Amino acid sequence: MTQPACPLCHLPPPPADSALLYAHPRWRVVDAQEPSFPGFTRIIWRDHVQEMTDLPVSDQQELMTVVLAVETVMRQKLSPDKINLASLGNQVPHLHWHVIPRWQDDASFPQSVWTPTVQPAIADTARLARQTAITRCLPEYHQALINRLKNLSP
Amino acid sequence: MTQPACPLCHLPPPPADSALLYAHPRWRVVDAQEPSFPGFTRIIWRDHVQEMTDLPVSDQQELMTVVLAVETVMRQKLSPDKINLASLGNQVPHLHWHVIPRWQDDASFPQSVWTPTVQPAIADTARLARQTAITRCLPEYHQALINRLKNLSP
Repeated sequence: MTQPACPLCHLPPPPADSALLYAHPRWRVVDAQEPSFPGFTRIIWRDHVQEMTDLPVSDQQELMTVVLAVETVMRQKLSPDKINLASLGNQVPHLHWHVIPRWQDDASFPQSVWTPTVQPAIADTARLARQTAITRCLPEYHQALINRLKNLSP
Repeated sequence: MTQPACPLCHLPPPPADSALLYAHPRWRVVDAQEPSFPGFTRIIWRDHVQEMTDLPVSDQQELMTVVLAVETVMRQKLSPDKINLASLGNQVPHLHWHVIPRWQDDASFPQSVWTPTVQPAIADTARLARQTAITRCLPEYHQALINRLKNLSP
C-alpha cells in the first residue's frame, strides 16, 4: 500500500534516516528536526491511507496509543507548558500525527506552530537559552521514548 | 472539576448555546461557526483537564471515539478533500478537539486554518459558491451527527 509520488511512502530505510527514532512494522516515530521547536515528534503510519477513518478501529486505537505514548514521555522528559496534537496532511495526505511540545516563550505561542512568528517582543536571548536547554534534553527524551515504544508494541 | 476563569468550563447551558449540537455528560459537540470553514466542529471534554494524557485511558478512548464519529459523519455528509484533526489548547488550555473539513479552494489550503489566508489567487466567487453549497448541507450533517452521537453514547 504505497503511492509512487508520496514522500512518506518512501522514507529512507533505517539506519539511513537520521530523523528516525523507532520503526515498527505498522508505523515510524521520527524527530521532526524543527530547530525552533525542539522535541517536535511525528508518528507516520506505514500504509498510504489519508484519514484516521480509513483505518479499521483496531488500527486507529493502536495509532492513538502510540501518539499518546509520545505525549506521555514528552511531558515526563521535557515538561512543556502545553502539548499540541494534530493530524492535518493537507500538503502530504499520508496519515501522520504531530506531537509538539510548546512553551510560552516559543516563537509562535499562543498561536499554532503553523502561524508566523507572533512574539517578536520576547528577547531572542531568553528564547534561545530555553531552546538550548531543551535541545540538551533531547537524547534522554529520545532514549526514554524508544524504550517506551519497544515495550508498547507486539 | 471546573476553573473560574476558563470559558470552556462555563459554556451556556442547553438550549441557550446556539452552537451546541449534542451534550453528553462527559463531553459536548459544537458547531465552531467559522464562516470561512463551514462544517468546522469542536468536541469539548466536560472536566477541566489540559492534556489527553491527563485522562484515564478509557476516557481517552471515549473522546477519540467521539472525534472519529464526527470525522465519519463529516466525510459522509460534506465530502471534504481532507480532514484536519487537532487538539492545541494554547489559548484555552481545557481539553478540546477541532475536526475541520478542508477543501482545496478554501482560504488557507494547503496551510492550516491557523495560517493567514494564502490563496488570494483563487476567485472569491468560486470559493464563496462552494462555501454556500456546503453551508446548505450543514443541517443534514448536523442531524446525522446528532443521530450518530446518540447511538454512540451510553
